[in-house]
Amino acid sequence: MQVIGSVEEMQKTSRALRAEGKRISLVPTMGYLHEGHLSLIRIARENSDAVIVSHYVNPAQFGPGEDFDSYPRDFNRDYELCEREAADIIFRPSSEGMYLPDHSVFVVEDSLSDLLEGAHRAGHFRGVLTIVAKLFNAALPDCAIFGSKDVQQLILIRRMVRDLNFPIEIISGPTVREHDGLALSSRNAYLSEKQRREALVLNRSLMRARELYDKGERDADVIRNTVHETLKEASGSELDYADVVDINSLRPVKHLDQPALVVLAVRFGNTRLIDNTVLAECNIEL
Amino acid sequence: MQVIGSVEEMQKTSRALRAEGKRISLVPTMGYLHEGHLSLIRIARENSDAVIVSHYVNPAQFGPGEDFDSYPRDFNRDYELCEREAADIIFRPSSEGMYLPDHSVFVVEDSLSDLLEGAHRAGHFRGVLTIVAKLFNAALPDCAIFGSKDVQQLILIRRMVRDLNFPIEIISGPTVREHDGLALSSRNAYLSEKQRREALVLNRSLMRARELYDKGERDADVIRNTVHETLKEASGSELDYADVVDINSLRPVKHLDQPALVVLAVRFGNTRLIDNTVLAECNIEL
Repeated sequence: MQVIGSVEEMQKTSRALRAEGKRISLVPTMGYLHEGHLSLIRIARENSDAVIVSHYVNPAQFGPGEDFDSYPRDFNRDYELCEREAADIIFRPSSEGMYLPDHSVFVVEDSLSDLLEGAHRAGHFRGVLTIVAKLFNAALPDCAIFGSKDVQQLILIRRMVRDLNFPIEIISGPTVREHDGLALSSRNAYLSEKQRREALVLNRSLMRARELYDKGERDADVIRNTVHETLKEASGSELDYADVVDINSLRPVKHLDQPALVVLAVRFGNTRLIDNTVLAECNIEL
Repeated sequence: MQVIGSVEEMQKTSRALRAEGKRISLVPTMGYLHEGHLSLIRIARENSDAVIVSHYVNPAQFGPGEDFDSYPRDFNRDYELCEREAADIIFRPSSEGMYLPDHSVFVVEDSLSDLLEGAHRAGHFRGVLTIVAKLFNAALPDCAIFGSKDVQQLILIRRMVRDLNFPIEIISGPTVREHDGLALSSRNAYLSEKQRREALVLNRSLMRARELYDKGERDADVIRNTVHETLKEASGSELDYADVVDINSLRPVKHLDQPALVVLAVRFGNTRLIDNTVLAECNIEL
């Protein structure tokens, strides 16, 4: 496995792989890999001949007061995990290499990026789309794999690929959960034991929403209320948002006649967790 | 020569050319080609094995009330000219293919794009950078050629390539002028005979600025005043801006100890013309 630190070297390597006829995949990560990331690397393996895992904690997607400085980092562990999953390349750019002091060009989205996560994390998606565009242009992949837990990110990246004509297939991986249902997240490491127990309320809310939907409930407000009531069971939590939204517009829906998402963001102390589930009559690939 | 109308077909064709080991160049145009464009196609030929000329009047870079509807168009003539210059491909996407009704992702620049042209054409550079990013991702070139007349555009595109890591070399072509010095522009076609004569004032101002500079003048205000005085010689014109700015920051300068640009935008009736020249002690490639 190769570790590449510069954009130029990464581009050269990808072009050489492509010239050999190899199909290239990219799994963008901020490191501190967990089983969720590893499942994406496995999807990448199945879909390509050469797997690039990018490893970069992107300052531009953290707001002031967010956890950029404390975000967990352990490169040696991540290296071992990538090697075990037979990734071919770790792309690990330096911050100086990624953002020059007078960096001034950004990718923005005007319709969906101020909703939900965007409403609570100013500038977050500008930071995400910009770094993903940069990683796409550095790694030049045929396909890129993103997890479904960050569903708004996934939808916005698909939108960016469509609107800016990136010649890249976006493949989503299902959310990976602990045995008790908590969605995997590098931020779970921040939780106290008590918070860890209370955090189960996210998945419990989603399960109850799906139960109602599967029994035929199509009034979004009924499901919304159940979710809100369930979330109150965690005494130490603060709600950022919990909603039932259209899968394309991300706007709240009334009647569940089209595929919808239940989306949640809940804070436990300083730790912010998100989760989601799809409500649809057939299988929907996010 | 091949005419390609869809992004997917363009990407497929470029990838096939690259797989054959060919170096690909892109000359982005809005059509109605003049000798300025043709000089860029010749530069493209010298720098690549396959020349793509894109041909698309981009609505997103015209403001409300600007000349999108009346912008001159003549595809058959442009086709002949491209064939004569031995271009390999004309990429001519449809507007529907380029902008879906819910298009919402844009490339923006935060530091230089509100100055000069940007101050007079709200949203212009967002439109330019977005379409150029789309054309880059459609044509997947190794290099792209832009004219120096639109100098702020050229600087912003170089910035975009740098900040978003596009693996593309940007090559500039010198401004091509009529025998009497008027910079070629598709918009010159709008000028009345009288305006056409008066429009020479742009180049005359730049010549006087260079004359002063070449004689050793390093006080930017002296040059600025001369340019303003010269521009007043055209009775039927209205000034948008005329300034002496730093070649990197595009901000007004006082002392000409670093390379600078004299930049002009002047309106003759509804026709808006721009021009510029470099003031530097050695040759500067824009």
